[in-house]
Amino acid sequence: MQKIVSLAKRRGFVYQSSEIYGGLRSAYDYGPMGVELKRNLMNEWWRAMVHSREDIHGIDASIIMHPRVWQSSGHLANFTDPLVDCKVCGERFRADKAPKLGEGEPAPIELADKGRAKVALEKVRSAFGLELQRRKKTLHGALGSERGYVCPNCGSPFLSEERKFNLMLRSFLGPVDPIGKAVDAVREAVEQGLDEETQRARAEEALTESTVYLRPETAQAMFVQFPNVVQSTSAKIPFGIAQLGRSFRNEVTVEHFIFRSVEFEQMEMEYFVPPGEGPKWLEYWKNERLEWWKGVGLKADNLRLRQHGADELAHYSDGCFDVEYLFPWGWDELEGVASRTDFDLKAHGEGSGKKLDYFDPQATNPETGKQGWRYRPHVIEPAGGATRGVLALLCDAYDEEEADAEGKGQRTVLRLHPRLSPIKAGILPLVKKDGMPETARGIVEEFLAAGINAKYDAQHSIGKRYARHDEVGTPYCLTVDGQTAEDETVTIRYRDDRRQERIKVAEAVEVVQRALRV
Amino acid sequence: MQKIVSLAKRRGFVYQSSEIYGGLRSAYDYGPMGVELKRNLMNEWWRAMVHSREDIHGIDASIIMHPRVWQSSGHLANFTDPLVDCKVCGERFRADKAPKLGEGEPAPIELADKGRAKVALEKVRSAFGLELQRRKKTLHGALGSERGYVCPNCGSPFLSEERKFNLMLRSFLGPVDPIGKAVDAVREAVEQGLDEETQRARAEEALTESTVYLRPETAQAMFVQFPNVVQSTSAKIPFGIAQLGRSFRNEVTVEHFIFRSVEFEQMEMEYFVPPGEGPKWLEYWKNERLEWWKGVGLKADNLRLRQHGADELAHYSDGCFDVEYLFPWGWDELEGVASRTDFDLKAHGEGSGKKLDYFDPQATNPETGKQGWRYRPHVIEPAGGATRGVLALLCDAYDEEEADAEGKGQRTVLRLHPRLSPIKAGILPLVKKDGMPETARGIVEEFLAAGINAKYDAQHSIGKRYARHDEVGTPYCLTVDGQTAEDETVTIRYRDDRRQERIKVAEAVEVVQRALRV
Repeated sequence: MQKIVSLAKRRGFVYQSSEIYGGLRSAYDYGPMGVELKRNLMNEWWRAMVHSREDIHGIDASIIMHPRVWQSSGHLANFTDPLVDCKVCGERFRADKAPKLGEGEPAPIELADKGRAKVALEKVRSAFGLELQRRKKTLHGALGSERGYVCPNCGSPFLSEERKFNLMLRSFLGPVDPIGKAVDAVREAVEQGLDEETQRARAEEALTESTVYLRPETAQAMFVQFPNVVQSTSAKIPFGIAQLGRSFRNEVTVEHFIFRSVEFEQMEMEYFVPPGEGPKWLEYWKNERLEWWKGVGLKADNLRLRQHGADELAHYSDGCFDVEYLFPWGWDELEGVASRTDFDLKAHGEGSGKKLDYFDPQATNPETGKQGWRYRPHVIEPAGGATRGVLALLCDAYDEEEADAEGKGQRTVLRLHPRLSPIKAGILPLVKKDGMPETARGIVEEFLAAGINAKYDAQHSIGKRYARHDEVGTPYCLTVDGQTAEDETVTIRYRDDRRQERIKVAEAVEVVQRALRV
Repeated sequence: MQKIVSLAKRRGFVYQSSEIYGGLRSAYDYGPMGVELKRNLMNEWWRAMVHSREDIHGIDASIIMHPRVWQSSGHLANFTDPLVDCKVCGERFRADKAPKLGEGEPAPIELADKGRAKVALEKVRSAFGLELQRRKKTLHGALGSERGYVCPNCGSPFLSEERKFNLMLRSFLGPVDPIGKAVDAVREAVEQGLDEETQRARAEEALTESTVYLRPETAQAMFVQFPNVVQSTSAKIPFGIAQLGRSFRNEVTVEHFIFRSVEFEQMEMEYFVPPGEGPKWLEYWKNERLEWWKGVGLKADNLRLRQHGADELAHYSDGCFDVEYLFPWGWDELEGVASRTDFDLKAHGEGSGKKLDYFDPQATNPETGKQGWRYRPHVIEPAGGATRGVLALLCDAYDEEEADAEGKGQRTVLRLHPRLSPIKAGILPLVKKDGMPETARGIVEEFLAAGINAKYDAQHSIGKRYARHDEVGTPYCLTVDGQTAEDETVTIRYRDDRRQERIKVAEAVEVVQRALRV
């Protein structure tokens, strides 16, 4: 993993956000290679889901939606992590991710150093009346509580109550000063002698009018715009609405490089079907989506479907599969494919007072037996992660080849599927003279005219240039040399096996085109 | 304009955001046609700016950057609107956009009705000791003040002080409850008897630690990541860094449909040049950008360059041109091309303590006369609006044709450049039988294999289908009929002149391909 992070920075795939300012926790920027890789992945999805299908329509919604959307969807009430503070070391953590420890089991508490351990010893004595034994930086004598878990930082079982923490990022809209209004409200509450809880509630009331949230998922726009899409496209069920875009979650636990970050990109589609057909379409879409991930080049052995157990399912869901990838830290989710019944359209219908249903004049109403059926569609949702997709592509493609007996040939290579490669062909003049640069640039033009992203590259020796293109996954390099002017041939060098051969320029365009065909 | 808004909704270009909840002020969603149009525009830019050029590198940065970025850039201190409240009607408005009225000139105040006028009369009497004369719903007798402007709603010259209002949207990051902390801080301040201004300041202090901002422009990431891009690409000056993406501004004045909205998409590029070469590259880029907008199909007569006067220029800028488009309400900005000197790299260098300079080993240092020159690059910034670009494309392409003498032929048509059209070819089976749907779907496959977005469309009569495709700007429709099975020909119908002719299917693909070539 460390090698991938290092390559990602060195070759311009992923940089830390605002790095010159020390970086921002779990925020990343995509460099010149990363932006192409991410665009290629997302464009593949759009082509497969929207352009190639008659039954799916694309949309692109605003990130800030009406706050009542999140009320209806349940994100305001339920989209929360249980947060706990450690009363010994002060760590704040997610209860559901903390190390388990049974009640009554020994709970050694380990601080960073002896000094802190002494302070902690005193703290436990005064706050809980407990006398622990200190050995160097560790305190002994505490026991696991009925909570069943301990602090992930120091191991202490002395914890605050669990507190619900909403994952949505909040902002304020409109030409008012919401903080000023909240300060006024708190001042009045304090002066009226109201208690702290009421003070907090008054502040919240003052903020409510201008509060908005950054979407924590793209999906809700597809439900909210369901009537507009039906009306403007005359879509017939079954059909889907698809969207690519950024979402935001104020994650307490950020981890694994770009895998879980505050800001991330999603590839989501909501597929609307008649009541009763959910299970059939769940089966269809879980297979479609698994095949798609294979199609962008991920090795079949590194992909699997995992069915959610009954305890994992949301109360409204009647089935869910994760497409999982074998990341360096183990199997983890790339995409969730969920059968959501009519939960979402029902919730937004009730929340907005609008009818979010669908009329099929041909279908037979199962209740009346008559032709013409008005119903609330059920939904299958394949929700893929583009950001973690990029990470999976990098992990899957990364390869190192050892040096041979003479100490030569060691290299790092990204074996990306050519459709995903940031650069499809490197066009390299052997030297910067004798008309070679001009010829090479002419070849770049031919590729661009064919819609293929080729790059002119004349810096450093040919060997170094090949190595650089191996590291960013360029599948083909064409070298223009003295012979090119004579017979219109170039050397094509294949990334995967480093084979080189002499071919006509026109053939080279055809070789690359063939590799890019779906 | 109203016709464009109406077409946009009816045909799935632009919907109001969260419409079923009554909409969100100045937020819009792009429907199935709008998302294609916007993607096509932004992809055109990416192709022209990044893929087709050796000297420009793309990036894709996070929307939430380190808050110190906005301190260094000046956005925290200066990115503000002067806001004023009317003391008669309560309207809050931007001072710089208010109607002008000279000192001492008559300022009639017009309320919504007689009742409100009576209340206002009393308000002015008690607050300012002035006796105005009421005639129906208008108050007479007030005079323009030295402020030089009046309330845009009622015309009153009785106004609050101007107050600075930051346009950046604020949010909070991390697993804390910032509002809770602010409430605590205010409570303490109140209990300590501190004044209101200090209470407000204490709340602000409590919020600072977790405060972040949504970027109000994409540009700053290009400055902040300048060192990483140079290092990972070995870019040689002059070179540029380009980015597409969403930005957010808490605009007080939102207007003209999607032209000025809270959330919008930008197409920005920062071009780094040696000191002294700013004016030369400003000249180059202003022309390049104007030509690009012509290239995506906007009529030359509706485009112009407008040079900023000395009073419009930022203090650090030594030149700026706007590419303007003739919108229905007049000339307005599509893109700004600014020479920004070394202001940005200097500001971020000072703010971060990192050296944001560039070493050219070949160049001669003008001060020492020796080879090898280390300098801080100057910057030319072409900053285009993708969202307003979409509006310009819709306005420019919109056309109505009158009915002929027989009352026939009336139509609305979007004359979009084929490269920008959401659908490049509509493939229409004449009837849904005799194998025509299958043949039509086969043709769709041929187009998709060639990378061209074609859509199968079998709903309603052929006439209605043509009309629908005219309204979304589809340049070509191919109709499959009985003859197609016999001789592999189809009817191609041209959007712009409604001409129809019979051609081979293979020729049709070639016709469309030709129109899409750059």
